[in-house]
Formats: sequence, C-alpha cells, structure tokens
Amino acid sequence: MLKRWQKLVKSLHNKKFRYEEGLFIVEGEKSVIELLTPENNVQDIKIQALFYTSQFAQLHTQQLTFFEKQVTYSELVTAETLQSVGTLQTNDSALAVAYIPPNLPFRIANEMMLALADIRDPGNLGAIVRIADWYGINKIICSETTTDFYSPKAISASMGSFLRVKPYYCQLDRYLKEYPHSIYGAFLDGKSVYGEDFKNQGIIIIGNESNGIPEEIAQYVSHRVSIPRFGKAESLNAAIATAIICDNWKRKSFG
Amino acid sequence: MLKRWQKLVKSLHNKKFRYEEGLFIVEGEKSVIELLTPENNVQDIKIQALFYTSQFAQLHTQQLTFFEKQVTYSELVTAETLQSVGTLQTNDSALAVAYIPPNLPFRIANEMMLALADIRDPGNLGAIVRIADWYGINKIICSETTTDFYSPKAISASMGSFLRVKPYYCQLDRYLKEYPHSIYGAFLDGKSVYGEDFKNQGIIIIGNESNGIPEEIAQYVSHRVSIPRFGKAESLNAAIATAIICDNWKRKSFG
Repeated sequence: MLKRWQKLVKSLHNKKFRYEEGLFIVEGEKSVIELLTPENNVQDIKIQALFYTSQFAQLHTQQLTFFEKQVTYSELVTAETLQSVGTLQTNDSALAVAYIPPNLPFRIANEMMLALADIRDPGNLGAIVRIADWYGINKIICSETTTDFYSPKAISASMGSFLRVKPYYCQLDRYLKEYPHSIYGAFLDGKSVYGEDFKNQGIIIIGNESNGIPEEIAQYVSHRVSIPRFGKAESLNAAIATAIICDNWKRKSFG
Repeated sequence: MLKRWQKLVKSLHNKKFRYEEGLFIVEGEKSVIELLTPENNVQDIKIQALFYTSQFAQLHTQQLTFFEKQVTYSELVTAETLQSVGTLQTNDSALAVAYIPPNLPFRIANEMMLALADIRDPGNLGAIVRIADWYGINKIICSETTTDFYSPKAISASMGSFLRVKPYYCQLDRYLKEYPHSIYGAFLDGKSVYGEDFKNQGIIIIGNESNGIPEEIAQYVSHRVSIPRFGKAESLNAAIATAIICDNWKRKSFG
C-alpha cells in the first residue's frame, strides 16, 4: 500500500480527519461485501478505494471485476497491511474508504424514527443502528453530543446496517420543538410499553447510557413509557432498551 | 499493596488461576458496593479482601466499618494501584477479591431458566446476566464451551447482577435430555414470539453469537420460536435476542 494511502486510512480513525476529508473506513468481509452490493447499499454510499487480500479475491473472484468498477482505486494487499492501517485486530479480507454522505434533515414522512439524546459509546451506537435496521427504522436523529456514526467501531458494530440507516446530527431540542407528531421516551414512571398504543408515525428517544434522557429533551416527550421490570437489575443497557421498545412498538402496530 | 496481593489479583485475570485459587475479582464502585450490601448480594458471595481508595472511604465513611467486618483483609490503596493490578482503565474507588461459589446443579423449581449453548464473548455474557436479573431469572445453565461467568469483563458487564444470578456449568446436551419441562429456542423458521404461549416453567436456550443453537442442543428444543423482523438486518446480537425473548415471555405470562 502506498505511503499516502496508509497515512490517509490511519488518519480516518480520528473524527477530525474524517470530517476534513469527508471519508470513513469500512472493515471486514461482511461489511465491505454489503457496501459493494447495490441492493444492500440502500443509502448508495460511494466508495473511493478498496484494499483486499488474496483470500478475499479468491472467495469473490466472479464479483471482483464488478466491485472494482465501483471504486476509483483498488489494490491487493496483505492481511498484515490491513491490520496495521485499520482498527480490527484481525482482518484477512478487505478495507474500503468511503464517502461520508451529507448531513441533511429528513423529510417528515409517515414513519417511526429514533432520536439519540446523548449516546456516547460507539459500540452502543452501532448496536442501535443494527436494531433500527431489524425493525425497519431507517432514520436516526442524533444530538450533537452523540458519538460519531462514521467511527470505525460504530460502523463495525452495526454489522452492515449503516448502509440502510441514515443519521442526521442536529440540535435535538430544537428539532423536537418543531416536530408535530408523537414523541416517545422511556422513564421509570412511564406507562408500560405492554399497554402503550404506539402510533406508526413518531420518534422514539433513546437517552444517555448513564443519565437517561436529559431534561431539555424530556420536556418534548408526549408519551412517557417504561419497560416493565420483574427482577432486581437497576437498569438496562441503552441498546437493550431500544430493542425492547422497538419490539413492543412493532408488535402493537403491525404484529 | 503487598507484593503477594498484587501477584494474586493480577493472576485472577486468568481463568486457570481463578479456578486454582477459587477466587475472582470485582472492580469499580457500583459492583463492589452491591457485593458488600447483604440485600443485594443475594447469592451470599463471600469476600476475602477489599482494596479501596481514600475517595471510596470518604464517600462511604459510615458503612466502611460494616464493610470491613465482612472481609479477612482490607487495605487503603491509590487509584494507580487499583488500575495497575485490575482490568479497568479507570478505577478510583475499589476492588474486592471474592470466593467463586461451588458449581452445583439447580433444584428444578417452577421457574424459567436460561441456558447458554456457547456464548463466547464475556461482554455478551455479562449483558445476558443483567437482562436475566431484570426479568427475574436467577439460574443460568452454561455449556462447558460458554465463556467464564467469573471473568473480570463478564462481572463488570453484569453491572452487579452476578450477585443475583447463578451459573451452573455442565454438559448442556445431557442436562437438556433429562429436563422434563418446556425448552424454548430461537430459530429463523420458529413461531413468532408474539403469538407463543409461554409457560412459567422452562428453559430458554441462547445460541452462539455466530452460529446460533448447535445441532446437538437443537434436538431438545420443544418450542421453536422466532423474533419477527421488519427490516433488513441479517441477525440480532445474542444479548438483544435474549432481552426480546424474555420480554415477550414475561408479557405473556405476567404482563
């Protein structure tokens, strides 16, 4: 791999450089293959460069010509090279450099969206993106304090779902103030999600890992819900809570 | 901290030494406080030694005498010491050395249990323990291939729930063969959990992170269930799947 590519890929571990360059990295076989497959790459994320090992080339001989057509630059490299420039401990297959899509507001449609009030852990963010994709949610509004959607760890943890779920970073309290439909948020004193009459259109707010939904956001919640507890754990992880709320919403709306 | 304690605590990062010594470590304020509080330490896990910082002592002045009565040895140390012998990146509060309870089979009672077929990631195991505790499940049967319940990472990830949930490691297929009640497992072709008529007594099997429930275990599943999918993610994380199955079970049985 040329020195300038090595330098670029390494720099993209860092948020500042990702946004200066407008680029992010996608690592590992599953994520790269989904990125290169148009029917999975629903967000139509464009690819600048592809670095792959001979093992990747052997496994995907037939598709490789098609894959290489989509990128400006491609190169056969070793697993050691991928591991030295990337963030995965083991990567014997591929790494792609892709363009960060523009941060544009969503057109309001008849659908459920998520809003992340202040999710700090990239692994949690990626897990939430994967859950959103499972439940057919493809728009996530993120507070400016929420960790970067395009960090290598969040992208990896999303297991390819970053291709079907789009973020919009904004001042969340202002966004919610203007939003005209139902806004759901989980609180200890909320109404059980088992009985909640979820609408098809609205926003589900997910709060911070330690502190839940901040006050300046909580004031815009129109439907306070809660997840019934039957044992003694004090709380649930943010991604787990997201999954349970989404599951109850879908069961009530479409189940 | 005396050299021999330093050496012991560090050795307990390793499974082999944990079982040779019959000891494990509990790190961080929340977990240590729960361990030292009898009403939270439901499993009655005994403590050998307690190491705490002056900050911990200041925050818990009144309880410290009570805490120290429960341990054979205690010592005031610095945060740097805790960090150098423990596994947490930052720990400015406490670390306890506790006794691993004996690995005993559970008496069969009228309750739901979890069975982990082959969970490899300690973070997932800890997350599952926390979910079990939330839903009032306190017995987890683990295949011998499942990662160690008492590893520092699993203990941390359980957020104190290791004190209320007990593991039993055994040859899972043999255990299930003899088990006389309902056995639930998630498969792509199973019946939706929304419609499943869950019993109060039984076992919910959670499969491996990549491969799901192994064949030699699958043959004992009496109720094949599935989690309805509305989008395009290929799968859900094992802990997320556990939470959704438990939530649907509780809603149907008690909700």
